[in-house]
Amino acid sequence: MNDLQYEFGMVGLGVMGRNLMLNIADHDFSVIGLDLDPVKAAAVEAEAGANKPVRGTTSTEEFVQSLRRPRALMLLVPAGKPVDAVIATLLPFLEPGDIVIDGGNSYFPDTDRRVIELEEKGIHFFGMGISGGEKGARFGPSMMPGGNRDAYERLRPVFEAVAAKVNGEPCVTYLGNGSAGNYTKMVHNGIEYGIMQLIAETYDLLKRGVGLNDDELQTVFGDWNQTELQSFLIEITGEILKKKDDETGQLLVSLISDRARSKGTGKWTSQNAMDLQAPVPTIDMAVLMRDMSKYKEERVEAAHSLPNNTLQATTDVDRQEVVNQMRNAFYFAMISTYAQGLAQLRMASEAYNYGLQLQEVAKIWRGGCIIRAACLSDIRAAYKQNPTLPNLLLDPKVGGDLMARQEDTRAVIKLAIDKGIPMPAFMASLSYFDAYRTETLPTNLIQAQRDYFGAHTYERLDKPGIFHTQWN
Amino acid sequence: MNDLQYEFGMVGLGVMGRNLMLNIADHDFSVIGLDLDPVKAAAVEAEAGANKPVRGTTSTEEFVQSLRRPRALMLLVPAGKPVDAVIATLLPFLEPGDIVIDGGNSYFPDTDRRVIELEEKGIHFFGMGISGGEKGARFGPSMMPGGNRDAYERLRPVFEAVAAKVNGEPCVTYLGNGSAGNYTKMVHNGIEYGIMQLIAETYDLLKRGVGLNDDELQTVFGDWNQTELQSFLIEITGEILKKKDDETGQLLVSLISDRARSKGTGKWTSQNAMDLQAPVPTIDMAVLMRDMSKYKEERVEAAHSLPNNTLQATTDVDRQEVVNQMRNAFYFAMISTYAQGLAQLRMASEAYNYGLQLQEVAKIWRGGCIIRAACLSDIRAAYKQNPTLPNLLLDPKVGGDLMARQEDTRAVIKLAIDKGIPMPAFMASLSYFDAYRTETLPTNLIQAQRDYFGAHTYERLDKPGIFHTQWN
Repeated sequence: MNDLQYEFGMVGLGVMGRNLMLNIADHDFSVIGLDLDPVKAAAVEAEAGANKPVRGTTSTEEFVQSLRRPRALMLLVPAGKPVDAVIATLLPFLEPGDIVIDGGNSYFPDTDRRVIELEEKGIHFFGMGISGGEKGARFGPSMMPGGNRDAYERLRPVFEAVAAKVNGEPCVTYLGNGSAGNYTKMVHNGIEYGIMQLIAETYDLLKRGVGLNDDELQTVFGDWNQTELQSFLIEITGEILKKKDDETGQLLVSLISDRARSKGTGKWTSQNAMDLQAPVPTIDMAVLMRDMSKYKEERVEAAHSLPNNTLQATTDVDRQEVVNQMRNAFYFAMISTYAQGLAQLRMASEAYNYGLQLQEVAKIWRGGCIIRAACLSDIRAAYKQNPTLPNLLLDPKVGGDLMARQEDTRAVIKLAIDKGIPMPAFMASLSYFDAYRTETLPTNLIQAQRDYFGAHTYERLDKPGIFHTQWN
Repeated sequence: MNDLQYEFGMVGLGVMGRNLMLNIADHDFSVIGLDLDPVKAAAVEAEAGANKPVRGTTSTEEFVQSLRRPRALMLLVPAGKPVDAVIATLLPFLEPGDIVIDGGNSYFPDTDRRVIELEEKGIHFFGMGISGGEKGARFGPSMMPGGNRDAYERLRPVFEAVAAKVNGEPCVTYLGNGSAGNYTKMVHNGIEYGIMQLIAETYDLLKRGVGLNDDELQTVFGDWNQTELQSFLIEITGEILKKKDDETGQLLVSLISDRARSKGTGKWTSQNAMDLQAPVPTIDMAVLMRDMSKYKEERVEAAHSLPNNTLQATTDVDRQEVVNQMRNAFYFAMISTYAQGLAQLRMASEAYNYGLQLQEVAKIWRGGCIIRAACLSDIRAAYKQNPTLPNLLLDPKVGGDLMARQEDTRAVIKLAIDKGIPMPAFMASLSYFDAYRTETLPTNLIQAQRDYFGAHTYERLDKPGIFHTQWN
């Protein structure tokens, strides 16, 4: 036992938990970690060194008893049943007022259920998305907490200390009620899927469609990271395109299988967007293209039976012009993706009573997280200017930026169409813009069809009411 | 009471139930209907006339006792809780070997649950999708039953008699286990959403983009229905584009609000496709555009702040050429949509052990249902030729038809891009084709990014194993 009352507790000392503990200790908060694996419990103490107020234990009782009350402890264990299992082992030792934080990518309805279950015992449950990976956890992640607002004050000093900083502002803030934090992180990941797919399509068009070699591609992404495209994902793409395989000396990325994997948060974003009737087409297409990548054998067969004969002719385009157009198109599509995700957050906030402030969301995404990008300053400004902005596209500055780039966006998509290169995420980003600014969509015809074959009725433009017609 | 042992029972005498009863009676099967509303119970008897073996009752006991054993009875009540409630009222009177058929658009996991619950009592539960609307129910729908294969023999004579016929073949067959029937109907509806959105986009491009007037549009769809595009949805579009409003004399469809509604089956198709990792982009975009249509006020605002200035110039295109291209593009996109839905069915059949035969699915979709179309004969032939065909696009005939039409498809989408007219469903249909025939997708870059920021590991093309790289 140890007489010190630790400021913060961590359950699950895998890569994320260990790194976050060390980050907390760096900011002079005492922290105790619990893991059933004694090797992990000892490792974090050793890694912290004797001078740091860091302890690891395998005893749940010791762990809980060593925490300052009201206790603040975070779980970093796999989402799903492990979270419930750990909560069950902790519960006998917890007291009213204690705070349990789930730092994993839990499915948001699970968080809402746990909030209610623990509230009955007087315990505050927080769902908190954490983005930034291993390195973020160690040196400054973006953190998205949701739960009880008053209880958040107990957590604030630690979280603000360990979070990434942008211009001195921490990339963490209280986001809202219930599963607001998990939901925001889910949509963060959906946007991440979208931008990653946009980068992949950009790489594909420039490589296969326009014939840029690896060095040229690396230069393009490296250069772009010095422009309005500056962002973590563009930055690491430049670095990836430099990395040689130790063994073969070839570019490593070209040796990697194109079967992409996913862990479900992008899919949840798309599926829940459909429940909310929130259109997020770029995210949908990004999820879909990871799925499409699985069908390698079928694609190999189709590549032979449905050959693409237009790819050969890559000499007919001005490569530098396409690179310049692509830069504008990427900005356009990236902003469209943020607009979709943020509109989904607005609708979710209404549907689930989160009380989200999108300005705050944009603020804490500017640093630490995977989708951090220079453009988030404009996005934050848009929501600061108008906290109830229905859609980012309606902000004058953002809208003007898109209007100025739409022609180049159209040009690169048309080029991809000519080349037979799939760019569904770019197409979806443009369709979102074009549909959103269309006053009268042709969906009146769909309503007529539904009434024709299913007597589903329709509304009219010229008078109120519900109508049905005998069409034939 | 009535001594006749009725061949078939119907619970729920709304439009669909009443019409299906009359259809059954037309084929000289005796049928009894149950509805708690005595008006409805009496109405069906009156509508059938005295010569027909049709009876309506409000008594559950009389209803069940009047059925020939093993009993065959169908529920046509709203999906969800009403189905469970009706089953609960019937159960005390049912006996082992009896068959309960749910003819509504039930969510397939509900059907699987009910199959298990009733199986415990020795009762066979069938989920059966019925398509064709009111008129189909009366004169010949397409019916998609799933459940116990042996029990189906009790139902077969009635179902084969009342179903639509194509070249003498009934548009009904035993589809497979458990919720196979509901699932097949769900995907049918997903394809229906896709084709309806394709028609709406076609109408939009020809009207707003190319400047065809209402008469010309009506002629186009009327003409197309005499070609390889022949289908119920093209046919009714031509009729809709003829229909004048009684009051104003204006074209009725132009007076209908563009806020489109939906009842959820399209959304379920997309959401479950994501669970199965089955790409159905055209269906996704069709679901999404109905959602997008809801945001009328925002779209009106965006139409002013992000004006589309390219629409005015409609004189710069050869209208007849665009109509001809559009015809080929529509065929291309329609086939792509069927390919997506049928691939989803194949994956669902594996995942849920349905034992679906896609040849049989195509066969029963040729008539009676909303997506009936001339092209389903080719589709059926493709799966007859190769019952394990992984994807319709790999069939030589179908693939060749698409290859021959791809250039026109690219042309109309590029025109829409120039005009700022959203065609997300066409784009998705083309992207599906282009992605499916791409041997190496750029998703290797996504795997590299995931490994870079999340240590998610990757596979290599040149050797087996799981790898992780320290990228920077």
